[in-house]
Amino acid sequence: MISGVRGISERVVGRLILYRRVLSDCVAQKIQHLHSHELGQRAGVSAAQVRRDLMEIGYEGSPQRGYNTSRLLESLAEFLDLPQGQKMALVGVGNLGRALLSYFYGRRPNLVIAAAFDIDSQRVGRVIHGCRCYSLDQIESIVNEQEISLGVLAVPAGVAQESAELLVRCNIRGILNFAPVALQLPQHVYVDNLDVTLSLEKVAFFARQNLKGIS
Amino acid sequence: MISGVRGISERVVGRLILYRRVLSDCVAQKIQHLHSHELGQRAGVSAAQVRRDLMEIGYEGSPQRGYNTSRLLESLAEFLDLPQGQKMALVGVGNLGRALLSYFYGRRPNLVIAAAFDIDSQRVGRVIHGCRCYSLDQIESIVNEQEISLGVLAVPAGVAQESAELLVRCNIRGILNFAPVALQLPQHVYVDNLDVTLSLEKVAFFARQNLKGIS
Repeated sequence: MISGVRGISERVVGRLILYRRVLSDCVAQKIQHLHSHELGQRAGVSAAQVRRDLMEIGYEGSPQRGYNTSRLLESLAEFLDLPQGQKMALVGVGNLGRALLSYFYGRRPNLVIAAAFDIDSQRVGRVIHGCRCYSLDQIESIVNEQEISLGVLAVPAGVAQESAELLVRCNIRGILNFAPVALQLPQHVYVDNLDVTLSLEKVAFFARQNLKGIS
Repeated sequence: MISGVRGISERVVGRLILYRRVLSDCVAQKIQHLHSHELGQRAGVSAAQVRRDLMEIGYEGSPQRGYNTSRLLESLAEFLDLPQGQKMALVGVGNLGRALLSYFYGRRPNLVIAAAFDIDSQRVGRVIHGCRCYSLDQIESIVNEQEISLGVLAVPAGVAQESAELLVRCNIRGILNFAPVALQLPQHVYVDNLDVTLSLEKVAFFARQNLKGIS
């Protein structure tokens, strides 16, 4: 059992998600115990960090045998997931949106894109990778009816802010934003930005720096 | 002119890329001058941060008129880009890989996916969104021939580490990694991870916390 923790930081939660992933692989490979340094190595962090993170959520391993993998996995799932799952609404069914529908299809039964929205009438009414595409006008009623709590933004930069505000008006409190825009939203809305071109430009820049460093 | 800077941090470079994006929009809208607080607001950072970042690369605005948008844009491009561009190799042409080919197609003339690689013989030989797909066996010669300097990894988690090592053996020094794995690579290789499911799980977790905080 993990006790609920308020005010836990983004970084800690990000690492707990990584630990969960590592443990899930271990359980699949029938590894029953894992020491903090082993868990850390597989997740790319230090052993001390692993121990601090797990202590922060009130979990302790045995110094002799390490962590019981399946028990820790269960506790992390209990901490990170909602048992009944959470539904997502995708806004924007262009190239990127369709790719996301295909990517998420069947991947995480606990987190599914339940409905997609677009303004293009050619897309509305279609079912893409198991997900129905609705007109953006209908978003408020569909989100309400289907009890959707998360949004995924895959719209062009120019309409990202207004699309995000629309999601917030639909009572959505968490947004995964793929649009290359710094959204300005109320504090109670959690936004994570996945900015593909920003990342790529960073890689291009530092790859050159590294080359200089070597030659 | 911006002077070259060694050891500039990832965060600064990330923000410079955002400033460049904002300035590019401003120039398109014929906005000729921008004060640091305006640039900061549009990029989602403080005015002081903008001034510090630009001073770090040796650029100063006029306190009266602010920054000249087109001049600063030019200087940032000079600092961030290689004039002749940089080529990328995509490894993994599954759903995600194909989505990336479609996403990048024609988007950044300076950063193009020049070749794609897969082990699936059904994919090899095809041209997808203007990009030819080769057998993974050919990667070393193609990367060499085409002077490809960056890698994009869109392979399943289980083969990500070996695929990344293969890229490093091909002299690639920068990798954009979409596989949900902490890659273990030599220090001179720059890796940026775009972990879609990790981000989504974080959004799902914090959206719930925010909900609790309100009710």
